[in-house]
Amino acid sequence: MYRVYGDLLSGNCYKIKLLMSYLSLPHEWVRVDILKGESRTPEFLAKNPNGKIPVLELEPGEYLFESNAILYYLADGTPYLPRAKLDRARVLQWQSFEQYSHEPYIAVARYIAKYLGLPAERQSEYESKRAGGYRALRVMEQRLASARFFVGERLSIADISLYAYTHVAHEGGFSLAEYPAVRRWIGEIERHPGHVAMPTG
Amino acid sequence: MYRVYGDLLSGNCYKIKLLMSYLSLPHEWVRVDILKGESRTPEFLAKNPNGKIPVLELEPGEYLFESNAILYYLADGTPYLPRAKLDRARVLQWQSFEQYSHEPYIAVARYIAKYLGLPAERQSEYESKRAGGYRALRVMEQRLASARFFVGERLSIADISLYAYTHVAHEGGFSLAEYPAVRRWIGEIERHPGHVAMPTG
Repeated sequence: MYRVYGDLLSGNCYKIKLLMSYLSLPHEWVRVDILKGESRTPEFLAKNPNGKIPVLELEPGEYLFESNAILYYLADGTPYLPRAKLDRARVLQWQSFEQYSHEPYIAVARYIAKYLGLPAERQSEYESKRAGGYRALRVMEQRLASARFFVGERLSIADISLYAYTHVAHEGGFSLAEYPAVRRWIGEIERHPGHVAMPTG
Repeated sequence: MYRVYGDLLSGNCYKIKLLMSYLSLPHEWVRVDILKGESRTPEFLAKNPNGKIPVLELEPGEYLFESNAILYYLADGTPYLPRAKLDRARVLQWQSFEQYSHEPYIAVARYIAKYLGLPAERQSEYESKRAGGYRALRVMEQRLASARFFVGERLSIADISLYAYTHVAHEGGFSLAEYPAVRRWIGEIERHPGHVAMPTG
């Protein structure tokens, strides 16, 4: 049985939970509290030398880290990862977009606002994160205005990656009022069989 | 014939050039000067709505963006991307590490030092980028101290992704003196048949 080390309040960890729920994959969840330093212990660093969650334990001593790599591994051979070479590359394209141009803005703005309470000394950083987050939302809106999902006509791990922090973007101060295609897409994902909500914390 | 839109002074573009050279893939290179705003024109945004280089043109009107997705597409079916499911996921793991925990520190420190001349108002940002870059180098050293390459016994696109900015890290003020395994690995890549140097600019 898979074991996942993570924290469901992290969107990067919630991605794994969501795919596992869609796939009905039995697993054990081991909570790692990063605010308590639990991802920096020698035991944890032996699982991921980069000290980040989530980590997937395939079997004792065999670990995989980085959320999008874990999604790829779990989705390979399922409908959530297309087989065709170009479609696979497009899934990775949107996941790279998520990790480089979306998560560092929307997830970090949410962290500063929701978990740190928007302290004055981080106000200017927060504003720049908001600007970058809206840039990412505009790119998403453009794609979703002409396509049901990010790749092809089926929900894939590209959608799961982008959904994780987009659907809680309001907690980072983002409004989706001007992004109707993004809102439509969020609704489609939330009606998908097996959907499980992100815990509120 | 493939067409690549990019700038060889960008490590993310150089990754594509390097793999294409290893594979002897004929291609046309179209220079896009981001400092002149050429990645923000309507024509370019039609190729990549996120306005970033590199972009691969598969055929007129068919584009793929994000360097690691392009590498995946070009390497699929070649020795530079393993076939086994877990090995593939590990390639993506290290490419995600590169894009999230390596490039935003080492490439940005290099940009501030080499292209902006380390202005006083970016000194503190530069220092924090250096700290993050050394964290990434420590993770790489740990991996490479016990393995020839990042995944398996062959050079893969995971190595290409990480090599691109690591081998010019000194331009960002990083010393590799305490990273002998990283230096050994750089030497192996530079002796690989078909290797092509990054232009100095």
